[in-house]
Amino acid sequence: MKGKVYIVGTGPGDPELLTLKAKTVIEKADVILYDRLVSNGVISLCRKEAEKIYVGKELGEASMQEEIHNTLVKKAEEGKTIARLKGGDPYVFGRGEEEYIHLVKHNIECEVIPGVTSAIAVPAYAGIPVTSRLSSHGFTVITGTIVNDYPITCDYIPRRGTLVVLMAIHNIKNVKEVLLKVRDPEESVAIIENGTLAEQRVILGKLKEVDILVERHCIKSPALIVIGEVVKFRDVLWKYK
Amino acid sequence: MKGKVYIVGTGPGDPELLTLKAKTVIEKADVILYDRLVSNGVISLCRKEAEKIYVGKELGEASMQEEIHNTLVKKAEEGKTIARLKGGDPYVFGRGEEEYIHLVKHNIECEVIPGVTSAIAVPAYAGIPVTSRLSSHGFTVITGTIVNDYPITCDYIPRRGTLVVLMAIHNIKNVKEVLLKVRDPEESVAIIENGTLAEQRVILGKLKEVDILVERHCIKSPALIVIGEVVKFRDVLWKYK
Repeated sequence: MKGKVYIVGTGPGDPELLTLKAKTVIEKADVILYDRLVSNGVISLCRKEAEKIYVGKELGEASMQEEIHNTLVKKAEEGKTIARLKGGDPYVFGRGEEEYIHLVKHNIECEVIPGVTSAIAVPAYAGIPVTSRLSSHGFTVITGTIVNDYPITCDYIPRRGTLVVLMAIHNIKNVKEVLLKVRDPEESVAIIENGTLAEQRVILGKLKEVDILVERHCIKSPALIVIGEVVKFRDVLWKYK
Repeated sequence: MKGKVYIVGTGPGDPELLTLKAKTVIEKADVILYDRLVSNGVISLCRKEAEKIYVGKELGEASMQEEIHNTLVKKAEEGKTIARLKGGDPYVFGRGEEEYIHLVKHNIECEVIPGVTSAIAVPAYAGIPVTSRLSSHGFTVITGTIVNDYPITCDYIPRRGTLVVLMAIHNIKNVKEVLLKVRDPEESVAIIENGTLAEQRVILGKLKEVDILVERHCIKSPALIVIGEVVKFRDVLWKYK
């Protein structure tokens, strides 16, 4: 009997944002495969006897993905129950769909458990709602990293509404250049580092200076950028200011 | 001593997608205020003695919002701990920010607990990832309903990437008209009714016929529409097909 793979979103950082379904799966798994952004509080929920495999990818480590695929298949073929843990949500730039497709090809049962996405919860913890009846009737989430050799293009960026850019820090100059082709340089931005965690840092400014702010404040990954009128809500909705 | 209000996202329907943090708050609350889209499985977690207040809004019931504000303030001033439950995430078209601002004005402590958003989890349960390295480097979430007298406009819609339209069913003809100003009529769409629940229904088609499909299949709220190349993944990623 082959085992089953659960591809589990573990949320943005705060271990309390894990779902009940994810907790149940982690507690019963024989094998845990976890990424760099999965918090220790989440990993510590697994059984003492569970095998824990770190598969944290740094940028550009494409070869790692093949290894992950192989490990998932191997462990499932041994009959193990596997929890494949990913930060945020598996289907928001998480390559969950690639791992799922690979497992289907090998006739291995797979289930995706959605998680609280960083794209919404990180701004929320910083006092920024991604939508607002008063000022933003939609939001867009893009990645600042280069995907399949293609950087993000204007085609993905609407003229209005909140914009959340994930994984943009290492590539901030290029990202800014693309954003400015569509959006107003005077728009408000918030740069949020280590969102939802005790170490959370929030830097506010204008879109035109976003690259300078990243450099000046030595922003490191994980971090995201929110652009739009909703940034102003932080003045009211962030209690620790 | 005034009480505290927690504005809690309860996820898209499946009660197992509740977060640990939300569960803790619901279990200790003196008062529960809940919307139409909060599932019974979630509400049943509250204490037997807790006061349960239904504040489910049907479309257009703007007056209800004032009543909700007043109830939150009144109960908090009585020293109660209040769990204000919302389907999905409180900051994704949930008016969480309006309630929070109202509470701040009355000097009442408030905390937002993000939830798993329907915009991502409903497509996931139907086998559709909102992003994909292979075909979608971003996604946009908009509402099809009329907000502050303004319908959604082209400005919120990018030319590429996945598009998720919430609350569009009652207004589908107008929504389609706006979408077609930006997007290709031949694009794939999935209409998902009662997402993540046992009653989930998924209708597939092309953008050009989305209004006809809604009518023909008598789609009812809650439902959402996904537009884009990622819809094709359902063939592989949906196990019940």
